Amino acid sequence: MELLKEKIRKEGHVKGQGILKVDSFLNHQLDVALFEEMGKAFAKRFAGQGINKILTIETSGIAIATSTARYFDYCPVVFGKKYVSLNLDSDIYSSDVYSYTKQQSYKIMVSKQYLNENDRVLIIDDFLANGKAVEALMDVIKQAGATLVGVGIAIEKGFQNGGALLREEGIALESLAIVDEMSEENGIVFRD
Amino acid sequence: MELLKEKIRKEGHVKGQGILKVDSFLNHQLDVALFEEMGKAFAKRFAGQGINKILTIETSGIAIATSTARYFDYCPVVFGKKYVSLNLDSDIYSSDVYSYTKQQSYKIMVSKQYLNENDRVLIIDDFLANGKAVEALMDVIKQAGATLVGVGIAIEKGFQNGGALLREEGIALESLAIVDEMSEENGIVFRD
Repeated sequence: MELLKEKIRKEGHVKGQGILKVDSFLNHQLDVALFEEMGKAFAKRFAGQGINKILTIETSGIAIATSTARYFDYCPVVFGKKYVSLNLDSDIYSSDVYSYTKQQSYKIMVSKQYLNENDRVLIIDDFLANGKAVEALMDVIKQAGATLVGVGIAIEKGFQNGGALLREEGIALESLAIVDEMSEENGIVFRD
Repeated sequence: MELLKEKIRKEGHVKGQGILKVDSFLNHQLDVALFEEMGKAFAKRFAGQGINKILTIETSGIAIATSTARYFDYCPVVFGKKYVSLNLDSDIYSSDVYSYTKQQSYKIMVSKQYLNENDRVLIIDDFLANGKAVEALMDVIKQAGATLVGVGIAIEKGFQNGGALLREEGIALESLAIVDEMSEENGIVFRD
């Protein structure tokens, strides 16, 4: 998706440790007009497949999933929770994720009330790197007996193995921008 | 806002400790069509005041703020971060909040890059109870030298003092539904 690539070229910052900082529009400040264009792009790529639920994970997936839902007939968005609160049901699906960004493991939790065997699910997330978060969401979908239709990602780090692993498994993965190389010196190279 | 009140009446659950559980549409599963109606309502109530930035706080404020931004000319949304990550700038505004729901204090952090003296800010959040989160966001706005135009809340717990305190201070507070009483036995009473 050219608009997203352009935005990354203009505003993204490559930092050490394989970090692409896109705080100005995706992870701290949010560009909602861009998210709606991303939602349209996902709707085009996953058209006619009866998606009736979008599953994402807090925090940065939520805004993209919200903007995407309007192009899937305003289907419900469910976000996996990372942090326990008094409000959370005890009756949950859960799965473990190791986050390299946060340098710790966490559980994602989804209440059993909001995911079931009638759901045809599109996973949406901001980044795909090693794929651990998406695998945990897939695990939750499996536990619920729901159907995974596909995975829609804003930015895939093509130099990490998450995307390759998912495609090998036959998962319908659509990434709007795939970064194949990046460095502070040479900038960002996108996959065609 | 009648649509929101109706939704709360139908799907909200009052639990002990003053908790109103609205997981099915606001805090875990998200009703984006409803959020857009809420966004329209905020746009009507804060029309013509030059709002050019929406400030919210992770997690549950994000989706509402995202849907609201489209009715404020797609202005940027910035969300205060509660959790430190490798990606966060070191140059931040921060303020402390005590959360009764989570039973702990936390910092909210906003990068200095995304809030400045040219911003006319609308704060958006899902709940207002004692007002601690909103006060912290107001503190951040003050630190940035930005202008607070108003505060838009989905559900105000009118039986807690946050709303009264903000109104006494002269803050333009607009809550789409104000719960004046609630109990497991007698249900929910809204303010007119």
